[in-house]
Amino acid sequence: MALRRSDPGKVKNPPERYTELMHRPPLKHCRNCGCAVINRLPDDGDTKERAVCPACNTVHYDNPLNVVGTVPVWGPDGGQVLLCKRNIEPRWGKWTLPAGFMEMGETIAEGAARETDEEAGALFEMGPLFSVMNVVRVGQVHFFYLATLLSDQFNPGHETIEARLFSESDIPWAEIAFGTVRETLALYFEDRRVGAMGFHTTDIT
Amino acid sequence: MALRRSDPGKVKNPPERYTELMHRPPLKHCRNCGCAVINRLPDDGDTKERAVCPACNTVHYDNPLNVVGTVPVWGPDGGQVLLCKRNIEPRWGKWTLPAGFMEMGETIAEGAARETDEEAGALFEMGPLFSVMNVVRVGQVHFFYLATLLSDQFNPGHETIEARLFSESDIPWAEIAFGTVRETLALYFEDRRVGAMGFHTTDIT
Repeated sequence: MALRRSDPGKVKNPPERYTELMHRPPLKHCRNCGCAVINRLPDDGDTKERAVCPACNTVHYDNPLNVVGTVPVWGPDGGQVLLCKRNIEPRWGKWTLPAGFMEMGETIAEGAARETDEEAGALFEMGPLFSVMNVVRVGQVHFFYLATLLSDQFNPGHETIEARLFSESDIPWAEIAFGTVRETLALYFEDRRVGAMGFHTTDIT
Repeated sequence: MALRRSDPGKVKNPPERYTELMHRPPLKHCRNCGCAVINRLPDDGDTKERAVCPACNTVHYDNPLNVVGTVPVWGPDGGQVLLCKRNIEPRWGKWTLPAGFMEMGETIAEGAARETDEEAGALFEMGPLFSVMNVVRVGQVHFFYLATLLSDQFNPGHETIEARLFSESDIPWAEIAFGTVRETLALYFEDRRVGAMGFHTTDIT
């Protein structure tokens, strides 16, 4: 990818459509003073329209968020993966790897571990970063770490109906909640067959 | 790192102090209706205090942001690295790798390429992801991609005083704007000596 300043149209326009995965509807009022905002080019040379406050001049930025989670595996050869059946929207009743929005005050790995603890109540050891996936349509980046389960007993939190181990042949592929989870699971079992865990970066459309 | 649901204090409290790097002061008014918010536990079982609107019940989340950039290298053996002298605060006049906040509508790599184009006006080819660095104190994750410069002529934008190539021995280490840039540069030259570029994840305190 060769880029010059003059290259047009390289950066796509922000998506007009927000799906249920996006937990932030567009900002309507100033977070500083409460006045209704106006969408316009800021005065600082910025080339993108932002929500600008006509009263206190605060410029509001909307940026992608990180979703962090793990691929918790069980057995001497990692033949089984822990999935959680979602007890919350979106995708209630669908299966997911434990994951959620990264919070202030934590690293990506700490957030992934926290979500695994909260959603599955699992005992595990964190491994290396396995996948980084851009989900541009909803303004998110998803990160999954490998994690080695130290027990097959789980104590899921209120966001999870059931936490269960699945072998590759039992994975409910049609009932997986999110594209990044499906893709990460597929990559995990592929790498397992090859016998070497890689580091994967992908864009999910 | 073994974790159980019962483990206390694993996740650090959100930092009280915001530095000049953090472009979002705490939210005071509801982004939906403009009413002054109250910091409290939401009603949905969430265990963290959030800014909740007493009028429309909107719960506001504060999440870490991604800063994306490149290590643009020049010469057959990548012996020189492109740095930009900052024309903006924070750290006006200090040297940095081209980088900035990831925007909606782009992948991490696209954001890194955009910043390299905007800040240096360089002609380059994107390489692999080189470093991912958590800066927990300011609620940021920094990503740097390797990039191969295709020209040593630059056309920096208004955020840059000067864009210049540096050999390792010339790097102005004491004048580098940010810890993640310093660390990424050090890792790059270290990997270059070894003769193999790695993928690095670090936490910067």
